[in-house]
Amino acid sequence: MRIDIITVLPELLESPLNHSIMKRAKDKGLLQVYTHNLRQWAVNAYGQVDDYQYGGGAGMVMMCEPLANAIESLQKERSYDEIIYVTPDGAMLNQKLANQLSMKDNLIIICGHYKGIDQRIRDLYVTKEISIGDYVLSGGELAAAIIVDSVGRLLPGVLNDETSALFDSFQDDLLAPPVYTRPEDFRGSKVPEVLLSGNPRIIEDWRHEKALEITGAKRPDLLK
Amino acid sequence: MRIDIITVLPELLESPLNHSIMKRAKDKGLLQVYTHNLRQWAVNAYGQVDDYQYGGGAGMVMMCEPLANAIESLQKERSYDEIIYVTPDGAMLNQKLANQLSMKDNLIIICGHYKGIDQRIRDLYVTKEISIGDYVLSGGELAAAIIVDSVGRLLPGVLNDETSALFDSFQDDLLAPPVYTRPEDFRGSKVPEVLLSGNPRIIEDWRHEKALEITGAKRPDLLK
Repeated sequence: MRIDIITVLPELLESPLNHSIMKRAKDKGLLQVYTHNLRQWAVNAYGQVDDYQYGGGAGMVMMCEPLANAIESLQKERSYDEIIYVTPDGAMLNQKLANQLSMKDNLIIICGHYKGIDQRIRDLYVTKEISIGDYVLSGGELAAAIIVDSVGRLLPGVLNDETSALFDSFQDDLLAPPVYTRPEDFRGSKVPEVLLSGNPRIIEDWRHEKALEITGAKRPDLLK
Repeated sequence: MRIDIITVLPELLESPLNHSIMKRAKDKGLLQVYTHNLRQWAVNAYGQVDDYQYGGGAGMVMMCEPLANAIESLQKERSYDEIIYVTPDGAMLNQKLANQLSMKDNLIIICGHYKGIDQRIRDLYVTKEISIGDYVLSGGELAAAIIVDSVGRLLPGVLNDETSALFDSFQDDLLAPPVYTRPEDFRGSKVPEVLLSGNPRIIEDWRHEKALEITGAKRPDLLK
């Protein structure tokens, strides 16, 4: 899988894309992520990529030409399954959408800044608008990193057994049951006895029951 | 405001915390963010901070002692308003919660990894569990960065007029209206005439109408 990120702040993405599981995915050749500085396609020698908004008001808007030229220059090299714009009014990212995206070959992610990108780029180029949650961020870069991480870790071969995605929250529409490790007694607070029973079937039942209980208490919407 | 992040991967957070608005907030002295490598409080010379889970199953669990010692060592220096654990089964981060957190003085954020942290740390120390969305990430670091960004940009003085948070999506429970900038005609696609009218009142009405229309179409739940 290949992901191309168009951004005015490629340096912000450096450390998230080069550590942990993203690094492993890249080292194994399973995921290539490239960041492209939008200023390469600036409209003038000053590197301008944004301008005041029509109709007035605070906040700059990212201009059409640099974005269109960036997208088209990538499209000349290969075809893309989706051109994603990360925006608070996009479709909410969830595990199902992450699963779907993990089956694509080539994605572009556009990171907005300031007041966002000119609406015409959304109308003419963007094929999928994604929000990572109901909150506002300084820019789309961290949202792009979230998409890369949530999707990248689902690619076959990226996770080993130790980090298996199969038992994660949401993969079965349930939140995960509580987990415990050594010591058995931490300052008087003990591990539930059932987990020490050595009986896999009883343990599995307990975990499933706890998962149902926690999901019912915290996120009844997931049980519907 | 001060935020202390406890993590096994401080290096992953380097670039997000040192660019853009987070950098500006730090330079202005409005926000201090410190990352603490959990391995400082490891249980042995090998730097161990996690162990197999009781009851069996794939995935390691972050141990009680290192986390408890990390939290207590920070608490010796100052008192904290919240000890936050980022987890998919936490309360969903939204703009209202970001606003609330922006009024606190000192926060700790614990980043989980693998299967998460020992339940007893959640029971005994954590005061607030936050999820940034219904998807699974490799670790809590990017989620912590999202919280720092969404909260940090709300601190008075961090944003200037150009990036004013007042007109952002969600601040009034509406998604933002479409935005446009030069050129007026982009390859035949034109800016809506009303935005060129020069009449602030008509423009404001149009924007409000569009915001309602977009919110109704994409996120009717926000209008309830």
